[in-house]
Amino acid sequence: MARIISGTETSRTMRAEIAREVAALADEGIVPGLSVVLVGEDPASEVYVRSKTQACEEVGMRGRTLRFPAEVGQDELFGVIDGLNADPDVHGILVQLPIPVHLSYKDVLERIHPDKDVDGFHPLNVGRAFVGDPAGFVPATPAGIMELIRRENIPTHGKHVVIVGRSLIVSKPLASLLMAPGPNATVTLTHKYTTDLSSHTRTADILVVAVGKPGLITADMVKPGAVVFDVGVNRVEDAISTRGRIVGDVDFAGVSGVASAMTPVPGGVGPMTITMLLVNTLEAARRSRAPDLSRGAR
Amino acid sequence: MARIISGTETSRTMRAEIAREVAALADEGIVPGLSVVLVGEDPASEVYVRSKTQACEEVGMRGRTLRFPAEVGQDELFGVIDGLNADPDVHGILVQLPIPVHLSYKDVLERIHPDKDVDGFHPLNVGRAFVGDPAGFVPATPAGIMELIRRENIPTHGKHVVIVGRSLIVSKPLASLLMAPGPNATVTLTHKYTTDLSSHTRTADILVVAVGKPGLITADMVKPGAVVFDVGVNRVEDAISTRGRIVGDVDFAGVSGVASAMTPVPGGVGPMTITMLLVNTLEAARRSRAPDLSRGAR
Repeated sequence: MARIISGTETSRTMRAEIAREVAALADEGIVPGLSVVLVGEDPASEVYVRSKTQACEEVGMRGRTLRFPAEVGQDELFGVIDGLNADPDVHGILVQLPIPVHLSYKDVLERIHPDKDVDGFHPLNVGRAFVGDPAGFVPATPAGIMELIRRENIPTHGKHVVIVGRSLIVSKPLASLLMAPGPNATVTLTHKYTTDLSSHTRTADILVVAVGKPGLITADMVKPGAVVFDVGVNRVEDAISTRGRIVGDVDFAGVSGVASAMTPVPGGVGPMTITMLLVNTLEAARRSRAPDLSRGAR
Repeated sequence: MARIISGTETSRTMRAEIAREVAALADEGIVPGLSVVLVGEDPASEVYVRSKTQACEEVGMRGRTLRFPAEVGQDELFGVIDGLNADPDVHGILVQLPIPVHLSYKDVLERIHPDKDVDGFHPLNVGRAFVGDPAGFVPATPAGIMELIRRENIPTHGKHVVIVGRSLIVSKPLASLLMAPGPNATVTLTHKYTTDLSSHTRTADILVVAVGKPGLITADMVKPGAVVFDVGVNRVEDAISTRGRIVGDVDFAGVSGVASAMTPVPGGVGPMTITMLLVNTLEAARRSRAPDLSRGAR
């Protein structure tokens, strides 16, 4: 049976570490602050935003939510973001996605000062992460997978990593991180147009699945001994609960008989995402002490 | 025998197209201008810079070289770049690499205004290219390979592309472009730490080699019918010329018997690089007319 890689446990450990560092910063009079901009009333977004701000409070950071009606104008939103950019008590800013279609996602993202873009979605931070510049912020989900790889001592040097899915906030940045000097992995990125997907997945020493299709990856598609990261979060019908239950993209029962280690869903990659958001916010607060480290866009 | 993909011919065609568009812009009183900053006296750099500025003149653009001694101070260089950023007659700026070690390559790059960064090396443009934002500039070499793929009608949809080498200015951006919506290729990026390189290269429908090792790729490493792009430029000893001769990373004689099409060295990817620099400079000049399209970093 595959060893379970628990993001829940690692997150607990890491949040305790973060809380200690936040306490140390408090002695300098700095309280890391995250401001979350929430537009409209998407119920899922409400849940995500609450868990993010709650996580902040739990580690001693300041977590604030700024709510706006779906009809908010882009100029008003820009004004709010400009204010947060200028506020020394705000170290991290994120705009909860999705945002209403009348707003330009791209323009809103680029309005956030790169030094406060703790989601790592501003193109300047995307570019910095791409070239391995530590001045950038790495998006939380790929950063969380890298953290699990480090803490679980999973070898990547010269290993073949196959990523299923090509999302801009998970798969592509993760591919970039894993192939870089240090991890030195060989990386294959596959997606819905890939011919004969299993011919690729079966060669993977490390398999990362981030698609959103329950049961996409079955035991026969996994190399014996492979390490599997399941990023999928899907709600499926359930005999017991009318609310259904959450599963990943990997057939856990089957694959756990083939893989050497794997993340469960829930309790795997998911909990790490908010934890890495806290890490980025803490880092942004630290950098706010040292202007020479803070690199604004020109 | 493999069909030869001639970058020389495609470049000739494209530069004629560019010259026509430059002429059209001239009617509006706009002459695309490229300024090349050259620090020190690296002979290879001298050659590259000359061919870039000459190529500009040949298509009716303004190509200018600003020379500085190797000891130039970073502040002086910044002043020069700031001046070029502000000069409306300068649409493209590039700093010829390598630059002396006492200068911060990163800081110099980030000093160039992203809208004039026709090399596409500014992290903001790297990020835009990564997310597929057309406002960014794509580095010339990967852009040139994409152009050859388009003009030679080489199918990429669902095909497996294997890239050998992981450079930030060729391999990684090319991987990002090929896996994106549109090209829809499955992409594997390999490098010097890849275990059993040929097990990957042999599965490639399209093989791109950008390492700098003469003869690295031999016929037995190539799948019959594959399309091979050789980005390597290596000077090797030669019985005839004392200056040696230029070869790529691919054993041309051997691989041309296996591949269905391939680029020669010289005359393949090389000539396309300067051509795509002209394309970026032309585009920068066009955008200078429409402020709403010009997106500066914040």
